[in-house]
Amino acid sequence: MKKVLFATTALIATASMAAAEVRISGYGRFGIDYNDANDRAVNAVPSTTITSRLRLQFDMSTETDGGVVLGARTRAQIESRDNAPGIGAFNGARFYASYGGFTLGVGNIIGAIENMPGLYLETRTAGTGIDGAGFVSLVTNVSNEYFNWDAYSSGLGGGGANGVEVLYTSGAFNGHLSYSTNNGAVAVDRAAVGVSYTFGDWTAALAAQDTDELWGDKVAVSIAGDLGQYGVRLAYADNEGISKWGLYGNMDIGAASNVLVWVTEEDAVSAADVLAGRGDNRDTALLDRGEGTSYGIHYSYDLGGGASFEAGWRESSADNTTVQAGVYFSF
Amino acid sequence: MKKVLFATTALIATASMAAAEVRISGYGRFGIDYNDANDRAVNAVPSTTITSRLRLQFDMSTETDGGVVLGARTRAQIESRDNAPGIGAFNGARFYASYGGFTLGVGNIIGAIENMPGLYLETRTAGTGIDGAGFVSLVTNVSNEYFNWDAYSSGLGGGGANGVEVLYTSGAFNGHLSYSTNNGAVAVDRAAVGVSYTFGDWTAALAAQDTDELWGDKVAVSIAGDLGQYGVRLAYADNEGISKWGLYGNMDIGAASNVLVWVTEEDAVSAADVLAGRGDNRDTALLDRGEGTSYGIHYSYDLGGGASFEAGWRESSADNTTVQAGVYFSF
Amino acid sequence: MKKVLFATTALIATASMAAAEVRISGYGRFGIDYNDANDRAVNAVPSTTITSRLRLQFDMSTETDGGVVLGARTRAQIESRDNAPGIGAFNGARFYASYGGFTLGVGNIIGAIENMPGLYLETRTAGTGIDGAGFVSLVTNVSNEYFNWDAYSSGLGGGGANGVEVLYTSGAFNGHLSYSTNNGAVAVDRAAVGVSYTFGDWTAALAAQDTDELWGDKVAVSIAGDLGQYGVRLAYADNEGISKWGLYGNMDIGAASNVLVWVTEEDAVSAADVLAGRGDNRDTALLDRGEGTSYGIHYSYDLGGGASFEAGWRESSADNTTVQAGVYFSF
Repeated sequence: MKKVLFATTALIATASMAAAEVRISGYGRFGIDYNDANDRAVNAVPSTTITSRLRLQFDMSTETDGGVVLGARTRAQIESRDNAPGIGAFNGARFYASYGGFTLGVGNIIGAIENMPGLYLETRTAGTGIDGAGFVSLVTNVSNEYFNWDAYSSGLGGGGANGVEVLYTSGAFNGHLSYSTNNGAVAVDRAAVGVSYTFGDWTAALAAQDTDELWGDKVAVSIAGDLGQYGVRLAYADNEGISKWGLYGNMDIGAASNVLVWVTEEDAVSAADVLAGRGDNRDTALLDRGEGTSYGIHYSYDLGGGASFEAGWRESSADNTTVQAGVYFSF
Repeated sequence: MKKVLFATTALIATASMAAAEVRISGYGRFGIDYNDANDRAVNAVPSTTITSRLRLQFDMSTETDGGVVLGARTRAQIESRDNAPGIGAFNGARFYASYGGFTLGVGNIIGAIENMPGLYLETRTAGTGIDGAGFVSLVTNVSNEYFNWDAYSSGLGGGGANGVEVLYTSGAFNGHLSYSTNNGAVAVDRAAVGVSYTFGDWTAALAAQDTDELWGDKVAVSIAGDLGQYGVRLAYADNEGISKWGLYGNMDIGAASNVLVWVTEEDAVSAADVLAGRGDNRDTALLDRGEGTSYGIHYSYDLGGGASFEAGWRESSADNTTVQAGVYFSF
Repeated sequence: MKKVLFATTALIATASMAAAEVRISGYGRFGIDYNDANDRAVNAVPSTTITSRLRLQFDMSTETDGGVVLGARTRAQIESRDNAPGIGAFNGARFYASYGGFTLGVGNIIGAIENMPGLYLETRTAGTGIDGAGFVSLVTNVSNEYFNWDAYSSGLGGGGANGVEVLYTSGAFNGHLSYSTNNGAVAVDRAAVGVSYTFGDWTAALAAQDTDELWGDKVAVSIAGDLGQYGVRLAYADNEGISKWGLYGNMDIGAASNVLVWVTEEDAVSAADVLAGRGDNRDTALLDRGEGTSYGIHYSYDLGGGASFEAGWRESSADNTTVQAGVYFSF
């Protein structure tokens, strides 16, 4: 499994204190998106549009005399999809304190589900194509409950979960606990846990979320192998009764190319679950919204200098086709 | 009175001209806030929340052949209070031209009241605790007229006063004149003046604001002594008839700690003033809103590397209690 | 024709890869604006106000092994006019890929009309005075159809055209094609082309826009001479039936000064065009809105260090007078 070499971050040393620093990094990506859900006659959007994102990321940190690293991250992200021009602002900040293998994070936390190894695709966009194409490949994205977990929010106006999390790493083991709560007369919490272990070429991971929110309880597992030229992965999640399986494989071709293919199988929402009156905006008409098979193929070509060509095609179980191609560069 | 060593700013020299530069600096702070005004059953906010702020500051300047320094400052600040996630944007810019002891500022001006020595607490947050806890300790903050003066605005969407100011410094003397006006059919101006003088360990300051705005006329005085291990300060303000006194003391303990205590005494709004029909949103029900004694205690521990632990407890005369603790680091 | 020496951009080399970089640059300008269209009694704005802008620009780029430069630009701009405080956010990003003399741009494109040589004034603000004073001098700005072409958008919330463009340069020749489309049930496109050629001290340019938008078809031509101490320029545009001529001249005086004068003559909108029912928000009352002569004078004094004093006075054919003076510095 090839890793495109990312340009690492700019490092601005402070004039008077080596410990404190600001790093500026990020990436740009732009390309063409064909999406058969877009049609001027239907939703006023051309079926083929430019898709682009510029991410500008600021990381600041210092180290105390006791060896604790204190830091924060914020991003500004300018994104255009579906021919809508984009603008940018700073997202919610994630603050952290690290010591040894422990990290405490607060604010715009990463989240234990989001951070689970073997969840996102092994591509530069973490999805299919140049902008991820909806991240249909994730086993935790089902029906109309996409991204129903605490995750670092990068988008315009994205403040994130304003939660707290603890990460621990020791050799081949990684553990992650995250928690957030919403304002309101009644507490609606999200608690998540994730663990992973790497043994040789293989990494096994498990993550789960418990919440009072509707449809938010999740258990996800994955096992992934990085076998030199080949990579394989199997993932499964139970999303409060909706099961989804995913199988993923990728292969290096020649010196600079990688091809990835994936397929997922999602169960229907059970009528019992819906009719039990869980009370959200689902109804029986949505019973089969995500049910069935999704699949995709992604191609990457390393252009050097931290840049690559990325292209992908995916079919979702909701009968949506996207084809995308473009370039991606880091700075 | 101990000064925590702040990490100074990153300096990016321009490639072709030594005179022009951009500096990136700022700070992060995060911690826990207990506020007895918050209650899920009352205002839908938990009484204990994460409080955080990330400040990213850009300073740009150049020097003309004649020795005039021209510059500007803008900030992006991502702030979370009361469990509301924060995002950030750039605030209004302050522009300046400096020559010798004179500085002309325009735009998001500092303001002569805001810049008065001996107004804010001698803590890293300039207030009590990790986020200032409402800055109850300021003698110019009374009743429901907090921050009723021209001040550099750092918050989200904070454009500031769009005013003009002149600062002058000569040896132990500092002077400050500021002015702004609002749009509208009738001019509503704010004019302020501030002077201070340092003699030995002591600094005396006076600032005043004259405005057509209701409740905006102010006269404030302070005297502060920096006596090595100890610091003491006395301040007083007349806020258009509402008097407030403040007494402040702090002491270094050991090599890294400082403890600060303060108490203020605020007069009631006189019934005559209210019933005279000044016409703002006050009414007799607010007569005693800020009346009485407020007090607080703050503890700081220098962690090195520009970082410190900060904690504080304060009781306001409006019967509000906050207790906060967290970390603060500069970059 | 003097060029004020601009402070060039800060260059932050990345730690691990020389090819990828982020550059921070920009400028500040602030001064006084007298505008006789402002009057507290009429529009609630004082006739004399502070005008200011701080531009903070981020350029990021890398180079592939094949020699293609991939990059992007975004800006945050904090601007105050008419005594309204300003704040800032990141504008739409322009992405590009360059190879040899070719550049492909997507997103917040420059646009072929906007990029035409000999369109904007030969001043630091590209207009008259310290903030451009409405850019009345442009022959493509007529009647109430100012800036009716695709142009890089820098303002707050400015996402730009989200278009695509190709630029080509070879020796003395420059060519530019740009295209954008809006969302909607029916495509409303803007296509523009520009060419220019420099022969000795003279540059000739032509640009045209074709669009389904009302009043958007344009043809503009210019010829400009840079004759050492003197600069002269003649420009003309047909703006869908509204002709406008412009004549411009500037002269260096002494070692640091430059004076520029300009005059434009704009035809009336023909009654036939209006009464033909083009259907936009014009009516016969607007027939002479921009008709007649506009003129202005601009003075610049180089202060060194990338800073200058800029002042200008202009009269528009719509009977509006502005007089401005201030300072401008780059970083």
